[in-house]
Amino acid sequence: MSTLNRRIVLASRPDGKVTPAQFRLEEVALPATADGQVLVRNRFLSLDPYMRGAMNDRKSYRQPQALGETMVGGTVGEVVESRHPGFKLGDVVVGGYGWQLYGLSNGAGLRKVDTSRVPMQAYLGVAGMPGVTAWVGLNRIISPKAGETVVVSAASGAVGSVVGQLAKAAGCRVVGVAGGSAKCSAVINDFGFDACVDYKAGRLLEDLAAATPNGIDGYFENVAGVVLDAVLDRMNAFGRIAVCGMIAGYNDEPIPVYNIRSILTNRLKIQGFIVSEFADAWPPALAELAQRVGDGSLKYRETVSRGLDSAPSAFIGLLRGDNFGKQLVELV
Amino acid sequence: MSTLNRRIVLASRPDGKVTPAQFRLEEVALPATADGQVLVRNRFLSLDPYMRGAMNDRKSYRQPQALGETMVGGTVGEVVESRHPGFKLGDVVVGGYGWQLYGLSNGAGLRKVDTSRVPMQAYLGVAGMPGVTAWVGLNRIISPKAGETVVVSAASGAVGSVVGQLAKAAGCRVVGVAGGSAKCSAVINDFGFDACVDYKAGRLLEDLAAATPNGIDGYFENVAGVVLDAVLDRMNAFGRIAVCGMIAGYNDEPIPVYNIRSILTNRLKIQGFIVSEFADAWPPALAELAQRVGDGSLKYRETVSRGLDSAPSAFIGLLRGDNFGKQLVELV
Repeated sequence: MSTLNRRIVLASRPDGKVTPAQFRLEEVALPATADGQVLVRNRFLSLDPYMRGAMNDRKSYRQPQALGETMVGGTVGEVVESRHPGFKLGDVVVGGYGWQLYGLSNGAGLRKVDTSRVPMQAYLGVAGMPGVTAWVGLNRIISPKAGETVVVSAASGAVGSVVGQLAKAAGCRVVGVAGGSAKCSAVINDFGFDACVDYKAGRLLEDLAAATPNGIDGYFENVAGVVLDAVLDRMNAFGRIAVCGMIAGYNDEPIPVYNIRSILTNRLKIQGFIVSEFADAWPPALAELAQRVGDGSLKYRETVSRGLDSAPSAFIGLLRGDNFGKQLVELV
Repeated sequence: MSTLNRRIVLASRPDGKVTPAQFRLEEVALPATADGQVLVRNRFLSLDPYMRGAMNDRKSYRQPQALGETMVGGTVGEVVESRHPGFKLGDVVVGGYGWQLYGLSNGAGLRKVDTSRVPMQAYLGVAGMPGVTAWVGLNRIISPKAGETVVVSAASGAVGSVVGQLAKAAGCRVVGVAGGSAKCSAVINDFGFDACVDYKAGRLLEDLAAATPNGIDGYFENVAGVVLDAVLDRMNAFGRIAVCGMIAGYNDEPIPVYNIRSILTNRLKIQGFIVSEFADAWPPALAELAQRVGDGSLKYRETVSRGLDSAPSAFIGLLRGDNFGKQLVELV
């Protein structure tokens, strides 16, 4: 087996929009696997909006991505060499090795997964961090009651599509917001939402009002900007908003919000969260998600780009909203 | 005793700023006090920012103020006639009779108060609804821990000054935001805050940063607008914001907020509330507040205008921030 690793590092920090020039492909020799270590050949890399925030060198909930270091990211792959008693050849493991073909470590943070009913890459999406994110925001912050209306932005995405399906299973009216008619029809037809508002159609306020005749009780926020304003205007008394992402602002332009008065008039609760801080939620969430993927009750979509070299352009596309469902890179 | 009542009714709804033309003074004869009724001569009327919202005919947390009807408002006064077994002549009662000299009712909603150690008008302020508002926002939403930094906007006001003193008693660093050097020095010298930022001085961001060297853990929001943006930029991880008022937006101009990204990056909790919905908090809050007023540990300031006729201009001054502490009208 080759011990020549290929990786993508952060070459420079973006000034506004991300461009391919911020990334650099490197080939480096891997050291021999030492006693207590495990070598993993990553098969899939997860691309996620949080990576955009990490590319900035400023206060955030996570450390900035270091310049010249391998881009951070979740991975799933196979153990190809093990000098660690907890892992054997062929084990499939989820880890955080980042944008590279190989991961070499002492095994800390690696999680073995069962691929008998769930494909390995699903553990990076619907049955992994994005799925748990959906589960936590919905169950720990929105806490929906049957009959309530829950709105989900970025509804066709890896997180949003799970939020909607879980809320539907909880007996809610579920309305998605997505960009474009293709995504909207998938939100309804593939993921079973009751309605979907195409924010690119130019009638956001009217369409959202029509889709939420009883107002909005819970909102899962993935985008901010004009969608947040439109939702704030439709919130019912004692509504809850889980703030999971604000992708529209990741390019550093602050996006103003006008309808914050609704926080007061409707006595809203708004809470930002990151899923890694809800450690106790992971076991029940992962169990439910894998169960639902296995029995077919939880649908998901993936956009897979091929080859490590494709990661920068796939990531830029993700920030633009080009992907459909979970954005993955297959590390062929 | 005269049974000629004088009252101020809402003559028209404001289009933007409130002007005296929206109010009309009327003299009306009171009916005789019927069996089961009590007649109260109101001595003080409370003026509060929420009245501005009630003047609009649109969705809010309270019914709009009806056109042609007596302006709503809290009052304290003396029972001057009683055909109700629960009240006797001379009883001092807090009620909600609105902008008028007399109140005639079946006694529902009246609360007898003890004026032996607390002056009657304090039950409209520090030992009444504004004080309980401060108590609820601080104790039920911000839940400060000793050593944390709590920021209070409209810090010299009836609510803000109580928030700060209670937070200080809880062991916090307490920073006020107020308009003008006179208010700021009172916030520090009279109310014992650790620091106060004069938002009219033109250095809001720099001054707030200097006053909160360890960031901000709790914020009691009374104003919105640029102060909210400045605070969002200084919030620490897991900060809490209690939204009690947004006086800056009451004239119907929506005020944009730019730094909402802080909700996500700092995992903030933001909650709007109105004090009447925390029924269980009133007894402990009122008891603590009256106790602290009686023993001198809770300071307060009042601005008292004289005569019912002065209420419209006093109210307009309140919306402009002219008052210092609780705005009252003495109903001579």
